[in-house]
Amino acid sequence: MASDEFDIIRRYFNSSELAFPIPELSLGIGDDCALLRPAAGMQLAISMDILQEGVHFLPDADPYLLGQRTLLVNLSDLAAMGARPICFTLGLCLPTADEVWLDGFSKGLAQVAREHRCTLVGGDLSASNPAHASKTLCVQVHGELPVGTALRRSGAKIGDLIFVTGTLGDAAAGLKVLRNACKESLSKLHRAALVDAFFVPESRIEAGQLLRSLASACIDLSDGLASDLLHILQASDVGARIELDALPLSAALRAAHSEAEQRRLAISGGDDYELCFTLPAENTEAMRQALGAIGVSVTGIGAITAGTDIQWRELGEPVVLKISGYKHFHSALAGVVEGAH
Amino acid sequence: MASDEFDIIRRYFNSSELAFPIPELSLGIGDDCALLRPAAGMQLAISMDILQEGVHFLPDADPYLLGQRTLLVNLSDLAAMGARPICFTLGLCLPTADEVWLDGFSKGLAQVAREHRCTLVGGDLSASNPAHASKTLCVQVHGELPVGTALRRSGAKIGDLIFVTGTLGDAAAGLKVLRNACKESLSKLHRAALVDAFFVPESRIEAGQLLRSLASACIDLSDGLASDLLHILQASDVGARIELDALPLSAALRAAHSEAEQRRLAISGGDDYELCFTLPAENTEAMRQALGAIGVSVTGIGAITAGTDIQWRELGEPVVLKISGYKHFHSALAGVVEGAH
Repeated sequence: MASDEFDIIRRYFNSSELAFPIPELSLGIGDDCALLRPAAGMQLAISMDILQEGVHFLPDADPYLLGQRTLLVNLSDLAAMGARPICFTLGLCLPTADEVWLDGFSKGLAQVAREHRCTLVGGDLSASNPAHASKTLCVQVHGELPVGTALRRSGAKIGDLIFVTGTLGDAAAGLKVLRNACKESLSKLHRAALVDAFFVPESRIEAGQLLRSLASACIDLSDGLASDLLHILQASDVGARIELDALPLSAALRAAHSEAEQRRLAISGGDDYELCFTLPAENTEAMRQALGAIGVSVTGIGAITAGTDIQWRELGEPVVLKISGYKHFHSALAGVVEGAH
Repeated sequence: MASDEFDIIRRYFNSSELAFPIPELSLGIGDDCALLRPAAGMQLAISMDILQEGVHFLPDADPYLLGQRTLLVNLSDLAAMGARPICFTLGLCLPTADEVWLDGFSKGLAQVAREHRCTLVGGDLSASNPAHASKTLCVQVHGELPVGTALRRSGAKIGDLIFVTGTLGDAAAGLKVLRNACKESLSKLHRAALVDAFFVPESRIEAGQLLRSLASACIDLSDGLASDLLHILQASDVGARIELDALPLSAALRAAHSEAEQRRLAISGGDDYELCFTLPAENTEAMRQALGAIGVSVTGIGAITAGTDIQWRELGEPVVLKISGYKHFHSALAGVVEGAH
């Protein structure tokens, strides 16, 4: 049994699999601070996410998959700015020093850390409140990009086209599979595809870097298209027209739910961690070539307009949708796990 | 009532008091990442702490004082490396959008942020697990220092002298006051001094920067002298001799507890966030002048020796002490708040 925080850090987190050297890192785990130095001409992009058991993940979540997801959803914020990951820090509150959980979780983290050359450089480990005994995970990712090239939310212009990578709604449908809230007849293959979409979202890190010179604005879809696109519109002071028929839906999602539910999950299910971006029409072909070359599918779903809101359209006609993104201090308090980011 | 996470961020955290411009910050709150750029020749020092209600602070802790403490204890890690604070990120899990708490907490943070020119640049806000309803706070601080000048734990040499700033044991005694575990006869003034030491530890940021060119090793005292000094010894592969009679104790601590308890709190109470550092004897006078000039008291408590452990001495003779720093996965699980860092 790992006896204290220093033992646990040594055994599970300060391994060469997870905490490896990179050129930008002068000092990693083991002192009061880690020391970083971006390369000349580069700036750091940083983003923090806090995840809590019972809100962002189910108590019985597989620790390996949870480790992967914890880092992947944070890397998605770097992708949305076009940054290249360099390192991350990890804060953990755990009710017990559960070796099986620690082993699985740290290996899941390490798998993603190695794949993206994003090394663990520090953090904090504590016992959680003994009266509550649930896990809290906090990750901060650090990426690098040339000064002045970051993809912002604020650059969308009237007439720009709107695209999303991958397919929408799969992760939220995956969470429903985990909660046994899907069609009984759904095939094993489709179930697995949806659960995978929740735990191991496709990384759009490379796509984000390619979009730096092409897109006018970008965001990652964590709360759902309806909510996240609004952030671009507000930051850019524009509106949007979205063609509902154009939303990219996977075969698994189509097999799992009614058309109305497919659409609801695609628009407001959240957790997809796909990129939603805008670009001037003349960059479309270059963007399609760049993303095609790395095997990332992309779908045009509408255009930026004057105004301040989203106009949803179906078969070319405006429709009214009653949807919203996740509100942490509304539905979360009712104990709903689905859709917390 | 603040209705969702974006409203709460706007109202309490994205204020000019808390999120103000600094030269190193290209982009703050409001996009997928914040963007930072250290000045030429500088590197970034980063450190993360995670604090949980019922483990690191009492459920009824005053939110203003808690806000101050949350940032101060993190800045202490920058002080220990000799870094100048530039910015921080904040992850919050809260059971409700309690306006009184949010107002007090954000104002406490802002007080420390302004005083140390350490601006809030991003983070994450979420509802906490509704079945548990406790608060979790995660802070990452970012500081700057010239490349290659950081104070490390690993530089102590045999013959170096060991010093601490301020007085020891007050914060742990303050926690005992909050839990009504001190002498009934203790004066109001002394009670206030001890509680203050817990909530608003003296910042050693300036002292840390002055020590960069003088000290050979440094750490901040979060877990207690006995535990934290060991980190220096292990990293430097040396031992230490500590004179118990020399430990600096405040008048308030002396008034509050027996001699045995004073000593126990000073050695293993934790939460003092004073600096413990080593330096070559010939730097002593320069160090005393530098710290004296900024009003920081400093006390010599022993010397670095060959060996691997701490030899405690009293009236010039070795004594055996049974003490230890805080072990998160031992006492924390018994529900003890005292001494969790």
